[in-house]
Amino acid sequence: MNPLSKLVFELSKLPGIGEKTATRLAYFILNQDASYSDSLSQALRDAKAKLKLCAQCFNFAEANNEGSALCEICSDINRDQNQICVVERPSDVTPIERTGTYKGVYHVLHGLLSPLDGIGPEDIKLKEILVRLKTVDTREVIFALNPSVEGEATTLYLSRLLKPIGIKLSQVAYGIPFGGTIEFTDRQTLGKALENRVEMQGPK
Amino acid sequence: MNPLSKLVFELSKLPGIGEKTATRLAYFILNQDASYSDSLSQALRDAKAKLKLCAQCFNFAEANNEGSALCEICSDINRDQNQICVVERPSDVTPIERTGTYKGVYHVLHGLLSPLDGIGPEDIKLKEILVRLKTVDTREVIFALNPSVEGEATTLYLSRLLKPIGIKLSQVAYGIPFGGTIEFTDRQTLGKALENRVEMQGPK
Repeated sequence: MNPLSKLVFELSKLPGIGEKTATRLAYFILNQDASYSDSLSQALRDAKAKLKLCAQCFNFAEANNEGSALCEICSDINRDQNQICVVERPSDVTPIERTGTYKGVYHVLHGLLSPLDGIGPEDIKLKEILVRLKTVDTREVIFALNPSVEGEATTLYLSRLLKPIGIKLSQVAYGIPFGGTIEFTDRQTLGKALENRVEMQGPK
Repeated sequence: MNPLSKLVFELSKLPGIGEKTATRLAYFILNQDASYSDSLSQALRDAKAKLKLCAQCFNFAEANNEGSALCEICSDINRDQNQICVVERPSDVTPIERTGTYKGVYHVLHGLLSPLDGIGPEDIKLKEILVRLKTVDTREVIFALNPSVEGEATTLYLSRLLKPIGIKLSQVAYGIPFGGTIEFTDRQTLGKALENRVEMQGPK
């Protein structure tokens, strides 16, 4: 395989990048200064080599010299280490951080329970949160999993495991998105929005 | 910048890849085996390091040990070396090759004349085709540039330079695309299609 076809081949393995887009990207890269392909190439190696999973929350974190890692959030003394938000993937952390309102820490499951796909409790970071709760004094566990069959099954399974420990458990609200309309909201979302309705404060 | 942000930053320089897509790609890469980031990283370096411009047609070609290059098409003795198709970019060669009907060779201009953008005859591989025509006995030059103001200006400019040499000059047909409809064909295309109408053969 010649170097161009090889580059197209590797690029087209990326999600959402077909052969046409990969070809366009490859030609773009060839037309740039060599410094660009060098720094992208280096960034790829570095990301994979230097990023490990945080020993506490399993988000990606830069490894220290001993090869172990503690992420920026877990090592931040200004964060509330007693409030844990459970998410499916590392990429779910960024949008929650962007809200600027959450000051606790995270626990990344790296997947959801899905018996049909053969993904059971052993395949995701479930027992790790139980271990963590035994060592760190925790006030609240917030579930922020996607509103899907797998997300709900995982929330249910984990909340049943955690209930006996006696920690406060909560779940992010599912409802009509900001900017959405009643008319075009799907049945499930509208059902959840009605179920989770909030009592209004009367005029003072 | 941490390795993850650095990777997102480098990926988001690619055309059509915003920060969101770059983040998605970066997480995908992190979730793959290290062999993938390694081979993509290597493919990037190789493509930039090993690919030079073909000494004859200026398409990308794998460089030999001396650092010079002759592309697969120019070095193929089964191709008609006396018929040259002029294209704007290396990426224009692939779709023409895919038709399977063209057996000649190419000349890649690496740009189109565009006085407004300050791109003149010196900035693209124009004089190179004149040099080439002096050394290689050529039967026909086919223009296959995009039907744009710049494409037409370049075709006109180059055809005027080539006319005195007395070689046959031709241009790919611009017209209604296969599968298109008269109703939804734009004014310019329809104008060209009428202008370039082909006389029909009567029944035999």
